[in-house]
Amino acid sequence: MNTVTSQPRRLTVLGSTGSIGTNTLDVIRQTGERDSFEIMALTGHGNVALLAEQARSFGAKLAVTSDDTQYQALKDLLSGSGIAVGAGTSGLQEAASLEADWVMAAIVGTAGLQPTLTAAARGADIALANKECLVSAGELFVEAVRRGGGKLIPVDSEHSAIFQCLDERHREALERVVLTASGGPFRTFSREQMADVNVETARTHPNWSMGLKVSVGSASMFNKALEMIEAKHLFDLTPDQIEVIVHPQSIVHSMVGYADGSVLAQLGVPDMRTAIGYALSYPNRSALNVDRLDFTTLARLDFEAPDLERFPAIRLARTALERGGLQGAVLNAAEECAFEAFVEGKIGFLAMADVVEAVMDDLCGLAPASTISDIFAADAEARDRAREAILKTRRAA
Amino acid sequence: MNTVTSQPRRLTVLGSTGSIGTNTLDVIRQTGERDSFEIMALTGHGNVALLAEQARSFGAKLAVTSDDTQYQALKDLLSGSGIAVGAGTSGLQEAASLEADWVMAAIVGTAGLQPTLTAAARGADIALANKECLVSAGELFVEAVRRGGGKLIPVDSEHSAIFQCLDERHREALERVVLTASGGPFRTFSREQMADVNVETARTHPNWSMGLKVSVGSASMFNKALEMIEAKHLFDLTPDQIEVIVHPQSIVHSMVGYADGSVLAQLGVPDMRTAIGYALSYPNRSALNVDRLDFTTLARLDFEAPDLERFPAIRLARTALERGGLQGAVLNAAEECAFEAFVEGKIGFLAMADVVEAVMDDLCGLAPASTISDIFAADAEARDRAREAILKTRRAA
Repeated sequence: MNTVTSQPRRLTVLGSTGSIGTNTLDVIRQTGERDSFEIMALTGHGNVALLAEQARSFGAKLAVTSDDTQYQALKDLLSGSGIAVGAGTSGLQEAASLEADWVMAAIVGTAGLQPTLTAAARGADIALANKECLVSAGELFVEAVRRGGGKLIPVDSEHSAIFQCLDERHREALERVVLTASGGPFRTFSREQMADVNVETARTHPNWSMGLKVSVGSASMFNKALEMIEAKHLFDLTPDQIEVIVHPQSIVHSMVGYADGSVLAQLGVPDMRTAIGYALSYPNRSALNVDRLDFTTLARLDFEAPDLERFPAIRLARTALERGGLQGAVLNAAEECAFEAFVEGKIGFLAMADVVEAVMDDLCGLAPASTISDIFAADAEARDRAREAILKTRRAA
Repeated sequence: MNTVTSQPRRLTVLGSTGSIGTNTLDVIRQTGERDSFEIMALTGHGNVALLAEQARSFGAKLAVTSDDTQYQALKDLLSGSGIAVGAGTSGLQEAASLEADWVMAAIVGTAGLQPTLTAAARGADIALANKECLVSAGELFVEAVRRGGGKLIPVDSEHSAIFQCLDERHREALERVVLTASGGPFRTFSREQMADVNVETARTHPNWSMGLKVSVGSASMFNKALEMIEAKHLFDLTPDQIEVIVHPQSIVHSMVGYADGSVLAQLGVPDMRTAIGYALSYPNRSALNVDRLDFTTLARLDFEAPDLERFPAIRLARTALERGGLQGAVLNAAEECAFEAFVEGKIGFLAMADVVEAVMDDLCGLAPASTISDIFAADAEARDRAREAILKTRRAA
């Protein structure tokens, strides 16, 4: 339980209009101690109507749209409210710089990198939902958090599960983490069947309601590949300490195996608010109005090894983990391009992994990043190479 | 990992020749830091040959047989070793009084009550494997540990699982514990089939290799009934916070449900050394040479609600939890008598619960225990009543 103190806890939500952001505001509301919170900044992109509504409802000090063209619209929506308005990259920087004690980092994509680094560097506790911070900029980001002195708390359900199962006193006895994967809609498909799927079948995730990118990433298991890289940086793991197991029901969110044979697992009904709530309450826990697991109706939990032939993303993540350096940034950027090409019907489902692998091999000689600019450069380079690889694939088809 | 300090940790194992005791010595050996341990006392019952061998091997200061008639035999076996020898109740008291920092309490039955209380009262950390301390004497025992100032660490796999999943910082957010039960050999039997089973089929536990009492208790789920009462005292729970779920594979050893929807579970290959090792290393964890869970071969975990018609023990435990006071002691004593009568062929399998229920109802007016003598008196009274109930059952049959 959060103790009510005289000083309200100052919160900022970077990316408040997306799925994570709206759930975060729901959790903040739910904890029932809203008066002990103070919302500093909320940021969004195109949906300024929702952003303005959130800012008014929570009495934010600052509302920022990352879309410069929406600045005036947001300003109009908030006129007379006393809420400051910002836009674009500088607006995001301003939001991240405001003195919040806790920052939800839920801006999607590389756009979230700089503001999250800024918040981390000034010592805020970071509830992390932006994957690029770890996948693309792992070493730099973890070092920024360490130097800032704030806590880094994962929000992804898998990493939150590991975080909840990992007692710092037992860190030396940690042997492995086991990331669970639903296996997506193609879990039981043959490779031949997978070659022919389209975006409509790929987006139907069996357990979670998610956006297109995440749904397709679940179908290809590229999500899990990214999570493997995130896990490495979050928990300081060697590649062989990271296991992936397919668990179609998505009830066990992930596990930690210790050197005494004990495995701790975190389970729950698929609802991202539990992980968000934990990130908000950590090191405590607060009650949430979410469904409880009923083991009498649960009946069974299944587990199977991922098939690396049908899901090469897992193999590519291992390669990236072993190579280290900028391979995470490269994998991430190439996968985004490959995903877009798949969605646009330019390449087949299985070709996504081929494109990523080609780009990773192409760029395996990059020197490790010293600055955030190195990350952006690698990201841009990987996207260029991916587009070439996509063209080659189309010509060959 | 245990840190090697200049002062060796002083250990005593009460009940070193039984299943828990021999596994405890194996774990002590395995931790590989044997030199940092000092074995104070080891106690056993009839198997003085094994006891003497253990005492010599571990360089114990004192060896005690609780069987007075074996005193001379043990003395002869240890002659010239410099190891002190004791016997009987006073010998057990002496063993419990020796200044060990950590005491494994693994003496079976009410005989374990007094020595464990003695060790707790002088402030030793208690690794608890004796069920009577909590089932029969819960309030008194927990109070003795509290006043002594030592830690109380459960060794039973279910309670160890809960202990491992229960972060003290989250105690206020604890909503429920979920004890798993294998369901035993009669999980899929009809009540009619269960009425006819004999001791040979009742003793075949599907997952754990155990003694006769525990195996039959697993078949009737009276083990689980006792564990429910233990859980109440160990974790200070209300009756409705204690759930039981049948889980035939015995891989999930038990779970804790929190008010944010999160459920933490501890899993492992069925091997009591993991729980013993945790009790020995707590608050740290030490590596153990036990099998690791392999999720790729695990395939599936099943869960189902226990059928209270076929397993009335669970219902009786709820009654005991709600009534409180000496009902735990009464349930335990009556069940032991009923078990013996079943093993001797005097009553049928299902009649065990009838006997226990009759005695519990008979003795539900007993005043709560103020002293250990009250426990012993209730235990004796319950056994008398159980014998009467067994006679009545036989006459009616």
